[in-house]
Amino acid sequence: MKQTQDTVRALKWTGVGLDVLDQRLLPGSIVFNSYTSSHDVSEAIRTMQVRGAPAIGIAAAYGAVLSGRARFAESPATWKSLVQKDLDELAASRPTAVNLFWALDRMGGLMRDISLGDDPFPVLLAAANRIFEEDVAANLAMGEMGAQYLKGSKGVLTHCNTGSLATGGYGTALGVIRSAYAQTRLDVFATETRPWSQGARLTVWELNQDRIPATLIADSAAAFLMKTGRVGWVIVGADRIAANGDTANKVGTYALAVAAKHHGLRVMVVAPTSTIDWETSDGAGIEIEERDPSELLTESFRQAESVITAWNPVFDVTPSSLIDVIVTERGVVENPTTASMQRLIG
Amino acid sequence: MKQTQDTVRALKWTGVGLDVLDQRLLPGSIVFNSYTSSHDVSEAIRTMQVRGAPAIGIAAAYGAVLSGRARFAESPATWKSLVQKDLDELAASRPTAVNLFWALDRMGGLMRDISLGDDPFPVLLAAANRIFEEDVAANLAMGEMGAQYLKGSKGVLTHCNTGSLATGGYGTALGVIRSAYAQTRLDVFATETRPWSQGARLTVWELNQDRIPATLIADSAAAFLMKTGRVGWVIVGADRIAANGDTANKVGTYALAVAAKHHGLRVMVVAPTSTIDWETSDGAGIEIEERDPSELLTESFRQAESVITAWNPVFDVTPSSLIDVIVTERGVVENPTTASMQRLIG
Repeated sequence: MKQTQDTVRALKWTGVGLDVLDQRLLPGSIVFNSYTSSHDVSEAIRTMQVRGAPAIGIAAAYGAVLSGRARFAESPATWKSLVQKDLDELAASRPTAVNLFWALDRMGGLMRDISLGDDPFPVLLAAANRIFEEDVAANLAMGEMGAQYLKGSKGVLTHCNTGSLATGGYGTALGVIRSAYAQTRLDVFATETRPWSQGARLTVWELNQDRIPATLIADSAAAFLMKTGRVGWVIVGADRIAANGDTANKVGTYALAVAAKHHGLRVMVVAPTSTIDWETSDGAGIEIEERDPSELLTESFRQAESVITAWNPVFDVTPSSLIDVIVTERGVVENPTTASMQRLIG
Repeated sequence: MKQTQDTVRALKWTGVGLDVLDQRLLPGSIVFNSYTSSHDVSEAIRTMQVRGAPAIGIAAAYGAVLSGRARFAESPATWKSLVQKDLDELAASRPTAVNLFWALDRMGGLMRDISLGDDPFPVLLAAANRIFEEDVAANLAMGEMGAQYLKGSKGVLTHCNTGSLATGGYGTALGVIRSAYAQTRLDVFATETRPWSQGARLTVWELNQDRIPATLIADSAAAFLMKTGRVGWVIVGADRIAANGDTANKVGTYALAVAAKHHGLRVMVVAPTSTIDWETSDGAGIEIEERDPSELLTESFRQAESVITAWNPVFDVTPSSLIDVIVTERGVVENPTTASMQRLIG
């Protein structure tokens, strides 16, 4: 499998600890912080030095490795009870990232199986490395599958950051764009993605690092861009996918899907099957987190006497009727419905 | 006619000169700069201390007053030829504001009719005051007409700044919102309006000054807001309206109109008839200005080796088929077409 133009990694295991690219400083500065304790990794997640659900899960797995190493050194006889505090701290570092809990469950399960007195470090490190590698492999597979749909397409538009920075590497939606770009020189457009500007700060940064030309647009220019005929596909990731294919993703995804339908363009969602919430039948059951209005309001509107507020939803839900293709590591679902989504259950 | 909750003025004639609210500093600081020469007014327009087509026209009219006063004092016999240089400088201060040329034509015509040796100041000042007052009166009239459509509406969404700051006072689209709010407590939503953030910096500032509660949203959250059922109307201004009702306005207006149609909501454009370009049959004939990519791209992407660029159109065109009502000071056109628009020619 081809792995082209994919040099960026948000996380690096150095042998003694985890190096975390501080994404808050991008694109101005490229700074890796080296962490050798579980507590420090928790803090790196909490303060959003690393973000993106898959990347958070991987970082947490290495946090568990660091905890096991330290607690075993501290007390070979009681390390298993001592780690629990660290795992709880890691789990509390971000409230909504499903991958975080999934990775910690996997690491916690392994710990239970280790014989008392055995150094847990080699087993835990191997497991964390496997979680990392599996994520990259899933992204490469999704990239190849998704790219098949882009043959002959003029251009693609993506939203938020779904690339190497948000994952173990390669990316989900941005992985599809990487794979497609390796085959044919398509035009890549990225939205700013207000209010956090993941597109303006992160997506174009990693594309620039990998020498994949891209054009940044204001979120509100996307519909006009579609009207000019320069894009054929909108390609996005997902934060949660309901059993019928309704997709919660970064706010603005729904607006792009509505505009794509108006212009007869197509919409692709790219996400590993771990993002699918089979317990939730449709998008109405997905709770939408709202962030602090201060991300939108300047200081002067945060005074007591201000009559100005902000509505700052982090995500929105795009109904599956506006989605043409969902790409997962287990395969592709076209025109997703509750019935067609079932094929992904393996 | 009722004039409620309208305290903000971007321009004030002081008797000796023009006070200009420096909109670049809003909402952090409220600073009026006092200008007593035509050259200084040109600079205030060029550097966007004042913006919004009607406000620019009014400022230019007062610039002509200052020029006439100074040139007559300098040389009562030759002032008429001396002012031309000042008028040319005012005309060159912004390239696209139609109201600027309209106001300067009106002031220049008056100057020609003044007898040589007569002090032009009283006549010119009266004319500039009239341009100012006529603009406010037109906005008040449009406000009343537009507000009739909002009876029983849950909420309204507006884009960019079309209020007192952009006009002589009261505003176009924001004037309709003022009038409607005076009659019934409707929910007002305003977009950030990237990349210049006229919504986040200016619209919510003047609404806060006038104690009209409003909720700021990211541009990309507008479609999701519509889906929640909290708005019934999208209300915007216009930079240029073609003879068939196609409307060029701040980029993002088209996206809002597309999303409004998808949700069965209605779209209102509010603009004086001076905004209508009868020579242009439809939106395809409207040239769209593109601004500097640096408004979107941070410094790190402006290096020679960067493969990242930006597409930064200032305006987009909303076809009249997506517009329900155009409100002008001469009356309202529902379902605008080339034929129905003709009614405004009086």
